Amino acid sequence: MSPPLFLVDALPPDESATVRLDGPEGHHAADVQRLRVGEQLLLGDGRGTLATGTVTSVSRGTLTASLEDRRSWPAPRPALTVVQGIAKGDRGELAVQAMTEVGVDTIVPWVAARSVAKWRDERPLARWRATAREAAKQARRPWLPTVTPVDVPFKPTFVLDEAAQTRLSTVDLPSVDEIVLVVGPEGGIAPEELASFESAGAVLVRLGDSVLRTSTAGVAALSVLSVRLGRW
Amino acid sequence: MSPPLFLVDALPPDESATVRLDGPEGHHAADVQRLRVGEQLLLGDGRGTLATGTVTSVSRGTLTASLEDRRSWPAPRPALTVVQGIAKGDRGELAVQAMTEVGVDTIVPWVAARSVAKWRDERPLARWRATAREAAKQARRPWLPTVTPVDVPFKPTFVLDEAAQTRLSTVDLPSVDEIVLVVGPEGGIAPEELASFESAGAVLVRLGDSVLRTSTAGVAALSVLSVRLGRW
Repeated sequence: MSPPLFLVDALPPDESATVRLDGPEGHHAADVQRLRVGEQLLLGDGRGTLATGTVTSVSRGTLTASLEDRRSWPAPRPALTVVQGIAKGDRGELAVQAMTEVGVDTIVPWVAARSVAKWRDERPLARWRATAREAAKQARRPWLPTVTPVDVPFKPTFVLDEAAQTRLSTVDLPSVDEIVLVVGPEGGIAPEELASFESAGAVLVRLGDSVLRTSTAGVAALSVLSVRLGRW
Repeated sequence: MSPPLFLVDALPPDESATVRLDGPEGHHAADVQRLRVGEQLLLGDGRGTLATGTVTSVSRGTLTASLEDRRSWPAPRPALTVVQGIAKGDRGELAVQAMTEVGVDTIVPWVAARSVAKWRDERPLARWRATAREAAKQARRPWLPTVTPVDVPFKPTFVLDEAAQTRLSTVDLPSVDEIVLVVGPEGGIAPEELASFESAGAVLVRLGDSVLRTSTAGVAALSVLSVRLGRW
């Protein structure tokens, strides 16, 4: 198993440095995961660099580690953005979690016409962001995904639609820096929304013949795109 | 949106027949989904045939529908079997749900060396089976997946292993009637289990560079295989 990943604001520039974890990350490492002196961990800046470290001291809520080798990855291009219809219950968070594991780069929470759940304050957005951060740690991702504010403007590339004839597995992939995939809420995407996406240049696509839940559709589509783009 | 699917033991052989739903399916249709006279529904036998129907009468817990056109699909070949390590909490059921949506044909619950959860009676297996049935209905699948008893013998084709060099996206797919993919529990697959699978002829494979949760790994791998096998 890979050692656990913890996030720091910045990794020190010199190769053989010591890093101190405190705050929530220190609490997670020292008190929850209960790392001990001599154990390995990963430290990441969430912006492409991961370093291997060894725990040199632990106390309640705090931990220090010596850094060993580090490695940086460029941000993947094209970036994969998912516009995720807001879903009721924990379906939205499940979608964010699984999509983060398989490599989504940006998530745009979208209040669709058929979104049953309403976001009345900042808490649901904060939960999506915390879920994405935890899932990125769990997945040992060098780059943290971004969860944008609700309903930021976007230019859709593909829209998942169970009635579409075109398949995501064979559709032409454009040469762009960002592929934007729209996933509807639990009630699906309304006809007027589909028409508006199409007139903005999006292609309606489907996966197989099954009707997928909103918490499954994004992760399945990202898996297909990851293969087609050579990420996997 | 596709009309909702309900399951019957057998569809009547004649083309323009009437079907009566009672028991749990009738309750689901009449009392939970509250279908009304004139609305469309799908009726399936879970063994490859779906028929479109129109509700002709509804009463508490019961519903009748006239059948219109029906369509049958052969069982997909190669069949996709996932040996799913038993996971704690609701992660196992989430895996069963999402894998059923994307088309798994058989699920084998596997008590792995690192499975933290223990199945002490028949209830967890019954929950997996109920979850698979509900997910197949939600996905409008013509074929219901099978959830076998715990630890039935299997011959592994591929084993998901984050340390593997071979990628599932490019590995040679054998010409077989059944591809059996092993997904470990939350703690991963123990070295002696990996060795035993390899000596049984399995190939260790990975998806991308991320570490996937047990509830995400199967659905991501099935998505990749569905594209490669031409299902999607």
